[in-house]
Amino acid sequence: MQTTELIGLVAATLTTAAFLPQVYKTWVHKSTRDISLVMYMVLLTGTLLWLFYGVRIASFPIILANSITAVLLFLMLLMKMKYR
Amino acid sequence: MQTTELIGLVAATLTTAAFLPQVYKTWVHKSTRDISLVMYMVLLTGTLLWLFYGVRIASFPIILANSITAVLLFLMLLMKMKYR
Repeated sequence: MQTTELIGLVAATLTTAAFLPQVYKTWVHKSTRDISLVMYMVLLTGTLLWLFYGVRIASFPIILANSITAVLLFLMLLMKMKYR
Repeated sequence: MQTTELIGLVAATLTTAAFLPQVYKTWVHKSTRDISLVMYMVLLTGTLLWLFYGVRIASFPIILANSITAVLLFLMLLMKMKYR
C-alpha cells in the first residue's frame, strides 16, 4: 500500500472512531445539555451524502467509514433527544 | 460540474460547517461538561491527516474543507480546556 493511501486510511479511521468516546460519555452520563443538536443533524446529513458519494464512485473505504460514522451520529442524535 | 462532484462538494461543506453551531453554542454558554475532550483530540488528529492527504494528492477541496474543520476543532479544544 502506498504511503498516501495509508495516510488516508488512518485519517478515515480516526475521524470515524473519534465519535466513539462521545457516544460512550453521553451513554454513561445521560447528559447532553452542552452538545449542539444542530451540529449532529448537519453532520449526519453530510455523512450520509459522503456515503452516497462513496457508492457512486464505488469506493469501499468511503462507504465503510461513513456507514460507521452515520450509525454513531444517529446514536448521538437519539441520545440528544432522549437526555435533553 | 458532474452530479457526483456536486454531491461531494455539498457533503464536504456540511461536514465542515456542522461544527459552527457547536462552536457558537459553547462560546455562548461557556460550558463543555457533556463534550468529550478525547473526541475532539482524535477528530483534530484525523482532520490534520486528511489535510496532509489532500496536500499529497493536490486536492484543493480536501485541503480547504479540512483546513476550516481543523480551525473549528482547535477552537473547540481551546474552549473545552478553558471552560471545564
